Amino acid sequence: MLNRKELIEQIHLKKSFLCVGLDSDKTKIPKHLLLEPDPLFSFNKAIIDATKDLCVAYKINTAFFEADGWQGWQSMQKTFDYISSDILKIADAKRGDIGNTSHQYAKAFFHTLKADALTLAPYMGNDSLAPFFQYPGHWGIVLALTSNKGSADYEQQKVGTEFLYERVIRNTCNLGSSENLMFVVGATKPHEFKIIRNHAPDHFLLVPGIGAQGGNLSEVVKYGRNKDVGLLVNASRSIIYAGNDAGFTDNARKEAKKIQLEMSAFL
Amino acid sequence: MLNRKELIEQIHLKKSFLCVGLDSDKTKIPKHLLLEPDPLFSFNKAIIDATKDLCVAYKINTAFFEADGWQGWQSMQKTFDYISSDILKIADAKRGDIGNTSHQYAKAFFHTLKADALTLAPYMGNDSLAPFFQYPGHWGIVLALTSNKGSADYEQQKVGTEFLYERVIRNTCNLGSSENLMFVVGATKPHEFKIIRNHAPDHFLLVPGIGAQGGNLSEVVKYGRNKDVGLLVNASRSIIYAGNDAGFTDNARKEAKKIQLEMSAFL
Repeated sequence: MLNRKELIEQIHLKKSFLCVGLDSDKTKIPKHLLLEPDPLFSFNKAIIDATKDLCVAYKINTAFFEADGWQGWQSMQKTFDYISSDILKIADAKRGDIGNTSHQYAKAFFHTLKADALTLAPYMGNDSLAPFFQYPGHWGIVLALTSNKGSADYEQQKVGTEFLYERVIRNTCNLGSSENLMFVVGATKPHEFKIIRNHAPDHFLLVPGIGAQGGNLSEVVKYGRNKDVGLLVNASRSIIYAGNDAGFTDNARKEAKKIQLEMSAFL
Repeated sequence: MLNRKELIEQIHLKKSFLCVGLDSDKTKIPKHLLLEPDPLFSFNKAIIDATKDLCVAYKINTAFFEADGWQGWQSMQKTFDYISSDILKIADAKRGDIGNTSHQYAKAFFHTLKADALTLAPYMGNDSLAPFFQYPGHWGIVLALTSNKGSADYEQQKVGTEFLYERVIRNTCNLGSSENLMFVVGATKPHEFKIIRNHAPDHFLLVPGIGAQGGNLSEVVKYGRNKDVGLLVNASRSIIYAGNDAGFTDNARKEAKKIQLEMSAFL
C-alpha cells in the first residue's frame, strides 16, 4: 500500500513514473510458458522480476484474467500477492454500479484481491463511486478522458458550458482528495491536460496510451505534470510483449529501461 | 441461449417477464447454507429450483461473486452452468473498455462463463461496446437511464438538445438491432419510458428497481411495453431474501409468484 507521499518518494527514488500494464494474454505470451501450471502468473512474475526497479506501479487489466474464468482470477490474486508493498497495485477493472453493488466491488478489489487502487467508470454518477472512497489507504481512479476514438461520443461532448469529462472531474472531486483520487487521462490529447489541471491541480493522473496506443511522453509531461510530478504513465503491450521467446524478460526490461531513462530526464 | 423470438415465446408460455436477480451475498443468505462446500452456489441453486417456472431470465450480479475472489467466480460459473437453456442468462457486470480489452471481456462472459447477455457501461463510447456485438446469439444490454439518484449527475444531463441517455440509446442502436441489443432503464422514472421508446421502439428493456428499489410494475408496463412486451423486469433482494431460514425457498417462490401473477394480468 502506498499513500501519496510514499508514491512521490518512490518516483524520485526510482527516477520513474512508469506504470507497467499487465494485459497478460495467453495467446500472446511466450509459448514455453504454456507448459507451466499457471502460465499467466508465470508470465506476470517474470515481467515483474524484470521491471520492478524501473516502475512505481503495476496495472493489472482484469479483462485478460477474466477471459480465463475462475482460474484467471486465481492467477490475478497470485499476481497481486507477488507485487511488493512499495509498488502501487492498480486493478484496471472500470467498475461502478448502484451503491449496494459498488460496496461489493470495493470489497472484491480492496479486501479480497488486495489492490491498492481501482479504476472506476462514472456513467451512473457520484453515488455509484462513493463506496470506493470509504476504504482508507486505497485509491479510486476515475475515467475522465480516455485515449480511444470513442471518447468523442460522450466524454468530449459539451454538457452546459463544459465537457462531460470536465464535469466528471469536478463532481468526483467532491468524493475524495488528491490523497485517494486519481483520474484516467488519455495521452493522445495533450492540450486537454490544461483543462484537466484547472480542475485537478494536485491529483495524480493515470495516463495510458504511451507505446502501443501512440502517445508522446514529452508532451504528456509538458502539459500534465504538477509540482509533485502528478503523473503515472502506463505502457502495457510495448513492454510486456517486447519479446516472445526465452529472452522475453530481457526485451521487456530493455523497453521499460528506455522509458524510465526518458522519464529520469524530467525528474 | 435465447434469441428474441424464443424469449417472447417464453414470456407468453410462462405468463411472465420477470428476471430474478441473483445478488447473492454470503452475509445475507440463510446461515445453514454456510456449512455447504459452496454456499453461494447452494443458495443460487435453491433459488433457481424454486423460481425457474416463474421467470424468463436470471441476472447474476458479478460484484457479489467477485467479493469472494476466485472462489466466487467458481460459484458464478457453476450457477451459469446450472440454469437451463430456455432461460436467459444475464451477467450484470457493466463492463466496457478499449476495444482490445472489451474483446477479452466478451470472451470472459460469452465464451468462458457462457452468459447469454452482458450489461455494458457506455462512458467510453461506441468503439468500447462494439466488440460485444460480434458474438452471434448473444446480447449486449447497455446502461441508458439507471434507477439510482446519481443518474441525475450525467445520464439526465442535456447534451445538445437531448439527454445523455438518449444519445447513448441513439448511438448504440448503430451497433446492434433489437435481436441482440437491450437497454437498462430504471423503473423509478416511468414518464421517461416514452422518450426511450421513441428511440428504441422494438428493443427489450431491462428494468431494475422493482421491489427493494421501489419501482411500480403497472407504471412500467403502461409506459414501457411494446407490441412484443419488450420488457424484462428485474427483482433481486425482494425475492431472494424474502426468507432467511430453512424455508427460504418457499418465501422466494411466494414473492416471485406474486410478481408473476401481477405480470400475467398484462399478458
